[in-house]
Amino acid sequence: MSENGAVPRRGKVLTLDTMNASVKKVEYAVRGPIVQRAVQIEKELKEGVKKPFDEVIKANIGDAHAMGQRPITFFRQVLALCTYPELLDDNTFPEDTKNRARRILQACGGNSIGAYSASQGIECIRQDVARYIERRDGGIPSDPDNIYLSTGASDGIVTILKLLVAGEGRTRTGVMISIPQYPLYSAALAELGAVQINYYLNEEKCWSLDISELKRAVEAARQHCNPRVLCIINPGNPTGQVQSRQCIEDVIRFAAKEGLFLMADEVYQDNVYAEGCQFHSFKKVLFEMGPEYSSTVELASFHSTSKCYMGECGFRGGYMEVINMDPDVKAQLTKLVSVRLCPPVPGQALMDLVVNPPQPGEPSYATFIKERTATLRALAEKAKMTEEILNTVPGISCNPVQGAMYSFPRISLPERAVQEAKAKGVAPDMFYCMKLLEETGICLVPGSGFGQKDGTFHFRMTILPSADKLKVLLNKVKEFHQRFTQQYS
Amino acid sequence: MSENGAVPRRGKVLTLDTMNASVKKVEYAVRGPIVQRAVQIEKELKEGVKKPFDEVIKANIGDAHAMGQRPITFFRQVLALCTYPELLDDNTFPEDTKNRARRILQACGGNSIGAYSASQGIECIRQDVARYIERRDGGIPSDPDNIYLSTGASDGIVTILKLLVAGEGRTRTGVMISIPQYPLYSAALAELGAVQINYYLNEEKCWSLDISELKRAVEAARQHCNPRVLCIINPGNPTGQVQSRQCIEDVIRFAAKEGLFLMADEVYQDNVYAEGCQFHSFKKVLFEMGPEYSSTVELASFHSTSKCYMGECGFRGGYMEVINMDPDVKAQLTKLVSVRLCPPVPGQALMDLVVNPPQPGEPSYATFIKERTATLRALAEKAKMTEEILNTVPGISCNPVQGAMYSFPRISLPERAVQEAKAKGVAPDMFYCMKLLEETGICLVPGSGFGQKDGTFHFRMTILPSADKLKVLLNKVKEFHQRFTQQYS
Repeated sequence: MSENGAVPRRGKVLTLDTMNASVKKVEYAVRGPIVQRAVQIEKELKEGVKKPFDEVIKANIGDAHAMGQRPITFFRQVLALCTYPELLDDNTFPEDTKNRARRILQACGGNSIGAYSASQGIECIRQDVARYIERRDGGIPSDPDNIYLSTGASDGIVTILKLLVAGEGRTRTGVMISIPQYPLYSAALAELGAVQINYYLNEEKCWSLDISELKRAVEAARQHCNPRVLCIINPGNPTGQVQSRQCIEDVIRFAAKEGLFLMADEVYQDNVYAEGCQFHSFKKVLFEMGPEYSSTVELASFHSTSKCYMGECGFRGGYMEVINMDPDVKAQLTKLVSVRLCPPVPGQALMDLVVNPPQPGEPSYATFIKERTATLRALAEKAKMTEEILNTVPGISCNPVQGAMYSFPRISLPERAVQEAKAKGVAPDMFYCMKLLEETGICLVPGSGFGQKDGTFHFRMTILPSADKLKVLLNKVKEFHQRFTQQYS
Repeated sequence: MSENGAVPRRGKVLTLDTMNASVKKVEYAVRGPIVQRAVQIEKELKEGVKKPFDEVIKANIGDAHAMGQRPITFFRQVLALCTYPELLDDNTFPEDTKNRARRILQACGGNSIGAYSASQGIECIRQDVARYIERRDGGIPSDPDNIYLSTGASDGIVTILKLLVAGEGRTRTGVMISIPQYPLYSAALAELGAVQINYYLNEEKCWSLDISELKRAVEAARQHCNPRVLCIINPGNPTGQVQSRQCIEDVIRFAAKEGLFLMADEVYQDNVYAEGCQFHSFKKVLFEMGPEYSSTVELASFHSTSKCYMGECGFRGGYMEVINMDPDVKAQLTKLVSVRLCPPVPGQALMDLVVNPPQPGEPSYATFIKERTATLRALAEKAKMTEEILNTVPGISCNPVQGAMYSFPRISLPERAVQEAKAKGVAPDMFYCMKLLEETGICLVPGSGFGQKDGTFHFRMTILPSADKLKVLLNKVKEFHQRFTQQYS
């Protein structure tokens, strides 16, 4: 025993009762209880437990490689060269991959991707990002000083929200998010103690955004908080809609009128499948609206290496562009990101390759185009197939998957199922999805994890499994839904 | 003009006055104004501006590769194989690197490091980390379920602090940190709005930690907040001391008695140079103290791929081990980390190689040992050289660099220099370091960025430049200090 006497018998320092209350409020359905159960079931299958299926299919998360999508050869070659520069002497690597690797390494401290980078990101990569944005937006200028590389898009989104949250009580920052939403937003707002302001997308009009609904939401919110931020996800997650140019213009006009900071989550900018749909960046539309808007409306837009045709989630690469940000606030942003030193350098290097892919005439060009086209074409086919098969099921109705990587169909649940779920204390669509998982091995996320109009039920399902697998999966969902409906009718 | 009428001329939504006040309070000296100036000077040199030096030497940050340290061959070979698995057919890679890469890839979704991992980290890597800890700590068991992989150690540290911050006013969580400290801690506490409780290390006794000082600090703090956490950095940053086993035991006893959650930042665990010094992990000492302690004291310890002999900062790899954490809180922790999806997978893979390096008999073993030994030996020599040269300078007094990567010498500044600095509104040691940078190109961090006793002045300097360069650098500091002293005497 110590000279201080007996150790006092005491409880834990850190308990549910004494921990950060804001953290307790955080919810993140995409990796919630249903996924934990899926992991358990996988273990049980490995241990030989008999199930009515052979494998768990995780259609809960936009994780393309996990679903079998192959990486883009050019990207991985350059990254391997950056990782182990001795390979620069290897003649099997195309010359353009070597040039790229040399250029990235020269921008790294000690020519190593093991060195910290500048906290805002490697300068020549930020320049490449700016040039990419300029090409994408038809020549509208982009300043590398407005680009911040990030650890995936999530990191950038949370950082900007962090800057914006202030005030107490009725002056507390309110943040408008779409319902259904990607739960990173609600989770970050809960953690930061900001006020979540819901605006509902119009399911009847293919999840489109009505300005009148934005008005309703902001006016109601002004009774109890200070709405300062409007978040948009386009193409939509979990809802898969692609916003029209007109809609974006209206949103910008609304933000200008109401004095809102715009956050445009555009990580699915290459994932547009439906005919007549096209991706319009908020930046481009803002600048095309003329200087009254382009010189005043504050905008942060976000991109990532995790989605589109590359699907490189594990590298945690991303960037954001900030427009019309007060220079003093920008200095604060730069300071804030410096505390975490820098985003992962391999992810930065990958972001560079995404914004600056092989050019015509370079050795890697043909393969790159082939791989990219094949992936995007397959996604477009799977988007169509998903909508078609789901809409053959009585009690399931699915909007067209215009873009992104998800369908978010509405499901009718028999009253008896709703009652049974409520008796068990779970959301009815969670009850449904959990049963689906146990009976078929298919892992989806219930709509309640994203938010939905009261009394409606949905699930989110990725379109990422291979076409063959996806077909099997959709038909299993169909059978399950019919069985479930019968059982509870 | 829109149908809504003219755009109201309004100010910015987000300004210094309306932004998050906690973010404004954040300071991070390691990448502060002095480093921004160093980057500017580098640009000026490139543009041909004449300076009294040819290059900027950044001895401000523990960034080994930027200072010319070479990566460990084995690590980079395996990472290149994981990145571009087609190389598994390449006969120039040793067999053990291929086996390792295959093992890591098999643990990845779709066998790709581009897939998300489990949010807590890849399971087989967490198992390897647990086995590493067991070996390091003489067989004391470690549970993979207590291991969380992280985006560098910083990420883990901020996450644990986030869980712990609660209460308002006099019940607000207080966190004890050493002074001098690594400014990640003060920055995170400012951002989270926790109360920073300073305890001073004893410079006269080689920056050792006195329990009486901990007592003084905690008792004083109890007047105005709720002290719940005690943070220790061992080996010390910025102070380079290595704690004795006895001291660690005393600290644990103190934490038990006072009801404090322990956070042990042990990222320099391989960086121990001084004779008679040895690294003791808090985990090991805790368990050797018997079940009264090992079954009650809550501890989180942190490690990283960025320091030690590997210095792979850019990969942002790290882990933490949590001991005696309330299971409900652990579930909250798991939920919280899931919002950010997962730490970068290349960094996870690297962490795996660090905790599970080549074994005797494997083809890569000899080279690995040679590289590791050479790096650690060079660091030990540079630690000694730094102390020796600095102590030849009248007005500089430097404790032995027992471990870590920094010296933190005390400097005497003439009263006139102190006055001039104050007149300019900068800390006197910032004034000194800025002048050093302008005159010599050497970039150091002033002691005021880490905290120091009032009226004392220091700087932090890494020991990372090559021995030749370091010698030149130390002699330049010597000359500068003499010049500066004369000039202001």
